[in-house]
Amino acid sequence: MTFRQQDYQFMQLALDLAKQGEFTTSPNPAVGCVIVNKDEIVGQGFHVKAGEPHAEVMALRMAGHKAKGATAYVTLEPCAHFGRTPPCAMGLIGAGVSRVIAAMQDPNPQVAGKGLAMLEKAGIATQVGLLAESAEWLNRGFLKRMRTGLPYVRLKMAMTIDGRTATATGESKWITGQQARADVQVERAKASAILSTSQTVLMDNAQLNVRWQQLPEGVKQGYPDKTLRQPIRIIMDRHHQLSADLALFQTNSPIYVVSQTEKKSQNLPHFCQAISLPALSGTQQLVYLMEQLGQRQINSVWVEAGATFAGALVEADLVDELIVYIAPKLLGDQARGLCHLPHLTQLAQAPQWRLQEVKQFDQDLKLIYVKDKLC
Amino acid sequence: MTFRQQDYQFMQLALDLAKQGEFTTSPNPAVGCVIVNKDEIVGQGFHVKAGEPHAEVMALRMAGHKAKGATAYVTLEPCAHFGRTPPCAMGLIGAGVSRVIAAMQDPNPQVAGKGLAMLEKAGIATQVGLLAESAEWLNRGFLKRMRTGLPYVRLKMAMTIDGRTATATGESKWITGQQARADVQVERAKASAILSTSQTVLMDNAQLNVRWQQLPEGVKQGYPDKTLRQPIRIIMDRHHQLSADLALFQTNSPIYVVSQTEKKSQNLPHFCQAISLPALSGTQQLVYLMEQLGQRQINSVWVEAGATFAGALVEADLVDELIVYIAPKLLGDQARGLCHLPHLTQLAQAPQWRLQEVKQFDQDLKLIYVKDKLC
Repeated sequence: MTFRQQDYQFMQLALDLAKQGEFTTSPNPAVGCVIVNKDEIVGQGFHVKAGEPHAEVMALRMAGHKAKGATAYVTLEPCAHFGRTPPCAMGLIGAGVSRVIAAMQDPNPQVAGKGLAMLEKAGIATQVGLLAESAEWLNRGFLKRMRTGLPYVRLKMAMTIDGRTATATGESKWITGQQARADVQVERAKASAILSTSQTVLMDNAQLNVRWQQLPEGVKQGYPDKTLRQPIRIIMDRHHQLSADLALFQTNSPIYVVSQTEKKSQNLPHFCQAISLPALSGTQQLVYLMEQLGQRQINSVWVEAGATFAGALVEADLVDELIVYIAPKLLGDQARGLCHLPHLTQLAQAPQWRLQEVKQFDQDLKLIYVKDKLC
Repeated sequence: MTFRQQDYQFMQLALDLAKQGEFTTSPNPAVGCVIVNKDEIVGQGFHVKAGEPHAEVMALRMAGHKAKGATAYVTLEPCAHFGRTPPCAMGLIGAGVSRVIAAMQDPNPQVAGKGLAMLEKAGIATQVGLLAESAEWLNRGFLKRMRTGLPYVRLKMAMTIDGRTATATGESKWITGQQARADVQVERAKASAILSTSQTVLMDNAQLNVRWQQLPEGVKQGYPDKTLRQPIRIIMDRHHQLSADLALFQTNSPIYVVSQTEKKSQNLPHFCQAISLPALSGTQQLVYLMEQLGQRQINSVWVEAGATFAGALVEADLVDELIVYIAPKLLGDQARGLCHLPHLTQLAQAPQWRLQEVKQFDQDLKLIYVKDKLC
C-alpha cells in the first residue's frame, strides 16, 4: 500500500491533534481527525473526553458540506458501535466522504475492523497503516488493555548516575532537578492511574496527585486548570498503614486502597475504594490486581515506588516500560538501589529492554525503555 | 573580537584535521592548521607524532609561495621555542603570512603567549579565541597537564540501567554490546595511558591494550595497523599479585606497576617499570601517583577498574570525566555496584557532574559527564 507525501503530513497533523486529548480522554483512546477536500484542510478535531464527541464528529462539524467527496484522516479506525455517541463510521458515510485513511485498526472488540467494513460497504475507499507506529505509541495504554485486559504499566525511577535513588538514610528530595520533576507531573497527568505503596506515601507524606501549577508552561496553555483530570491513585497498603490525616487524602479524587485482607482500612474518606487481594503468591496477587485495574478501565498505570515493589513488578513481568531519570550525581554503593530482584548468577538471566527515547531536562536525562518483546 | 563566517569554517576544518592526530600525538597536543589565501585553501596539515613536523610546518610546506600574504588558522597558539623542531611562529614569519588566527593560547609554559607575541613583533596580525571551546575539549588532557601538572583522568564504567557492573558472582562479560565495546577500544586508543588494578587484570586475565582489529571500520581507515600506538598501561598492584604469565604481558609495550613497597614484583618482563608509593594515606598516594604520571608526560588516563578503585579516585577528587555506558538490562540490587563511596547521609554531599555528551551505540547509551567545576 502506498501513500502520497501529503497523506503523511495530514496524518501527522491528525496525530498532533490527538495528542491534545492525552490528558483527558482516559479510559478512551486519544484520537485526531483531519478532513481534506482537494488538498485543502476543511475540518479537524480531536476527542477530548469520554462522553463528549469523537474526533470524527468534531472534524465533520467543522467541514460541513465540504466533507462531501473529501478524504478523512483518522488516527484510529472509526467506531462502528452505539456507545455514548453514535458510530463515527455512520457519521462519515452520512457526510459523504469518499475516502478514509486510518493509522491503525481499533483492537476494541466492539470495533476491530467493523468500522472499516461499514465504510467499505457504503462504497467508501479505505486504507489502513499510515504512521501506524506513532499511532500505536500514542495509545499504548488503551491498546494494551484492549488486547490483553491488563493496563500498560510504566515504572518511573529517579536515580543518580550510579543507579541510586536515595542516601542510605533515605533522603531522596531531590535527586533530580526542577525540569525533570515538572516532566514527572506531565507523565502523571497523562496516566489513567498512579500506583504506589503505603511505604512510599508515608516516607514523604506524598500526595501522588497532579499539581497543575507545576506543569510546564507549554502544557498549561493547552490544558486549563479547570479541566484538570486527577489520575486514580492506587496504593498498596497490605497492612493497613494508611491513616486519614495523610496529605494523600487532601485531594478529593478516587483512591483504590489495595490490601491483603477483606478488613477495610478505617476512617478513610468516601472517595477511597478497597481492593482486597486473594490469598495467592506475591506475583499472582500483582497479576490479579492488574486484571482488576483492567476491568475498571484503567489503560495506563504510572508507578512510583521503592526498590522492593519496583522489583516485584519487574519479576512478575508486568512492567511494559521503564522511565529512568538520571541526575548528574554519584551516591556510592551504600546508597539505596533502584530495583530489588532475586539473586541472578548469570548475565543472560537479566531482563532485557529496548531503548525507545532519550530526552534531556537541564542536567538530567530521561530514558525510556520498553519491553524487548512487545506484546 | 569578531570573526567572519568563513573564519569559523576554516577553523572547523583545522579542528577536523587536528583530530586525525588524536591517536598518535601523545604526549604532544593534537593540532591542525589551514592556510588560506584570498579565501582559497592553499595549505593544510596536522601534527602526527612527537618528533615529527608540527601542523603549521605541514601546512606551510603544502602552501609554498602561496603562504605569502595568507591567513593561517591554527587550533593552538604556534610554538615559540626550539624543541625537537624549530618554533612554528618563526616558520610562519619566514613564509610571509600576514595574519594568524589561533583557537586558543597554549598554556605550555614554554609558549604561553610567546608564540603570538613573536608573530605580532614581526608585524603579523593575530587573533585568538575562535572555536576555543572545541579546541579546549580536543586537547583537554594536554591542557590539564600543562596547567596543573596532573593528567586528565577519564573513568569508564559499563553498567546496567540500574547501575550494576556484574552479577553478584562477578560475571560481567558482556554487559554492553559489540558497538559499545568497539567504542571503548577507540577511547583506549586515544588515551596516553590506561589505568587499572591487579584485581581487574586477574579477574578477566585482561590485556588492557588496543586491539586494532576491534576498532570501528571508520577509525581503521584513518589509522593503519602499523602506526598503532599502545597506551602505557598502569596497574595498581599494591600487593604484588601480578605474575609474568598473564595475558597483560603478551603485548610488548610499557607497563607501570604501582606497588606499596620498594620491593619489585618478580620476573616481570623488561618493559615493566616500577612506581612505588610512599607511606601516605590512600588519597595522598593517588595524588602522588598522578603527579608521577604528569611528570612522565602522560596527558590523559583512561581508567577501567572495579567499584573500590573507582570510588577511591572519585573520593580523591581526581576524576575529571565519567564515561558511562548503559546497557538495556536490569540486574537488581544484589548485583555489583558501580562505585564505592563513603556513607553519605545527605544528598548535598553527593559529587555533582555536568552532562557533556550523549551517544547511542545500538541499544547501549554512552554518557559523558565532566566535573561540575572545570579546572
